Amino acid sequence: MNFKEELDARTAQAEEVLKKYLPKEEGYQKTVVEAMNYSLLAGGKRLRPILMRETFRLFGGEGEVVEPFMAALEMVHTYSLVHDDLPCMDNDEYRRGRKTTHVVYGEGMAVLAGDGLLNYAFETAVKAFGTSGDGEILGRTAKALSVFAKKAGIYGMIGGQTADIEAEDREAGGPEQPVTEELLLFIHEHKTAALIQSAMMTGAILAGAGEEEIRRIEKCAYNIGIAFQIQDDILDVTSSLEVLGKAVGSDEKNHKTTYVTLKGMEQAKRDVESLSGEAVDILASFSGRNEFLEELVRQLAGREK
Amino acid sequence: MNFKEELDARTAQAEEVLKKYLPKEEGYQKTVVEAMNYSLLAGGKRLRPILMRETFRLFGGEGEVVEPFMAALEMVHTYSLVHDDLPCMDNDEYRRGRKTTHVVYGEGMAVLAGDGLLNYAFETAVKAFGTSGDGEILGRTAKALSVFAKKAGIYGMIGGQTADIEAEDREAGGPEQPVTEELLLFIHEHKTAALIQSAMMTGAILAGAGEEEIRRIEKCAYNIGIAFQIQDDILDVTSSLEVLGKAVGSDEKNHKTTYVTLKGMEQAKRDVESLSGEAVDILASFSGRNEFLEELVRQLAGREK
Repeated sequence: MNFKEELDARTAQAEEVLKKYLPKEEGYQKTVVEAMNYSLLAGGKRLRPILMRETFRLFGGEGEVVEPFMAALEMVHTYSLVHDDLPCMDNDEYRRGRKTTHVVYGEGMAVLAGDGLLNYAFETAVKAFGTSGDGEILGRTAKALSVFAKKAGIYGMIGGQTADIEAEDREAGGPEQPVTEELLLFIHEHKTAALIQSAMMTGAILAGAGEEEIRRIEKCAYNIGIAFQIQDDILDVTSSLEVLGKAVGSDEKNHKTTYVTLKGMEQAKRDVESLSGEAVDILASFSGRNEFLEELVRQLAGREK
Repeated sequence: MNFKEELDARTAQAEEVLKKYLPKEEGYQKTVVEAMNYSLLAGGKRLRPILMRETFRLFGGEGEVVEPFMAALEMVHTYSLVHDDLPCMDNDEYRRGRKTTHVVYGEGMAVLAGDGLLNYAFETAVKAFGTSGDGEILGRTAKALSVFAKKAGIYGMIGGQTADIEAEDREAGGPEQPVTEELLLFIHEHKTAALIQSAMMTGAILAGAGEEEIRRIEKCAYNIGIAFQIQDDILDVTSSLEVLGKAVGSDEKNHKTTYVTLKGMEQAKRDVESLSGEAVDILASFSGRNEFLEELVRQLAGREK
């Protein structure tokens, strides 16, 4: 199999896992569940669950304990998009070519659907405790849950969203309130890299990786996340609506400080390369190997959409 | 000590536990943490953490394992209020005499603060795993977390909120779309009773209660929650702004179907009595006793605010 076929197979597997854990659309709560599933099944690369499972495999993980966490992470990612799209946040009417949740179900229901997804993420992750009676696995699950929760919250994704909203308000104050590189990296680390770290650290922990290994995976995922975000900023300048599937040039239009405006296009491209290269080196440094995962990280650095 | 003194002491203890687990207002995420703490410290009866600790004590629970869950449940309760108050939900500008979170911090930040609280609730509850190295306690904590998560989500509180929003839309359709008793009880069971069940079941589970005992506590908490909500409906008719601290007569003004409009005032009062009486009987049926908890349930039935 070539890389593309392997990736498609793994995306389909991740999709299957997600579907296994979808809540049922029934009862008096049917509408909120429909809204949750509408947003969960809006497509997407399923990158985070794939990274989780592949990191789990890298450290020799076996069994189903990782699956509830795979579905749960996609739920966290999805709820953040539902709330981000709300009129009081980014006010987006379309995502991946479909109407956003609040456009279809109304704002109140979209708030509840986001809350429902976040809560259901934890309901789902907790199911990992039931996949094995082994005390060792129980302990790993508790540890994984702790990292999973932290990386989604104020010391992870929500922290990044907060700083991002404030940076936008700050820039609206004019050029005397510039966004610094330190702040921009904080935003990218938390808003984007944190869920990549959640994916890979959770996978490693559930597979029984040691403290030092988990620390290196955290750094590896940091690099992947930052490179991913810089690549987003690059594509917003260099790509087209046709290739990307969404409007380009939005950062310039919004006078937004990005990694590209701060460091220049050439430096940005070099940094994507070096961050990704270092991430692959970290992955290749463990006693086990996962060549698909290494190739995936390389491909993400060169992605065109 | 009389009951009032005992209640005040326990409220102060619950407040202390909550403060111990508050996130720090620092870093680039400072604003969202301020908004979270603003809403968490807006006062309130701390009824749910008190019920949790007292049920924990009823079943002979010892140690700190219950404390992270006490704080976490108050965070869940608080996030639901922050999101409920949003303009796209109930659009309330005041709560307990203070401006609501979105009025002070803006709508976007209020959405994030609610998300942050819900997520931090799980970050906090997960800390219970670290309070003991005992495998038995680890297992109880995993089980408690599962119930805690379920009762907050689409099969608990969020399910009730969904049905409540839809019932309001339904009633706006006119008298040919009446809210039935079955639907009203679904809403009360999920929107109100579910977090009382979370409190008492979590307390029981962490203390090591057996399956049958947990099932009876679930029923007991159901009764307390439904009685609590009926009493709310009664007070909306019979109380005053001065006593209640909030506007009365709002249900009538909004042509809202309540337990009182469905069953009449006298029946509603009798049902509060019988539901609470049955709850006290359940509490008194276990081999251990907690007389403070029994009295608390009696007092809730007769509360005037």
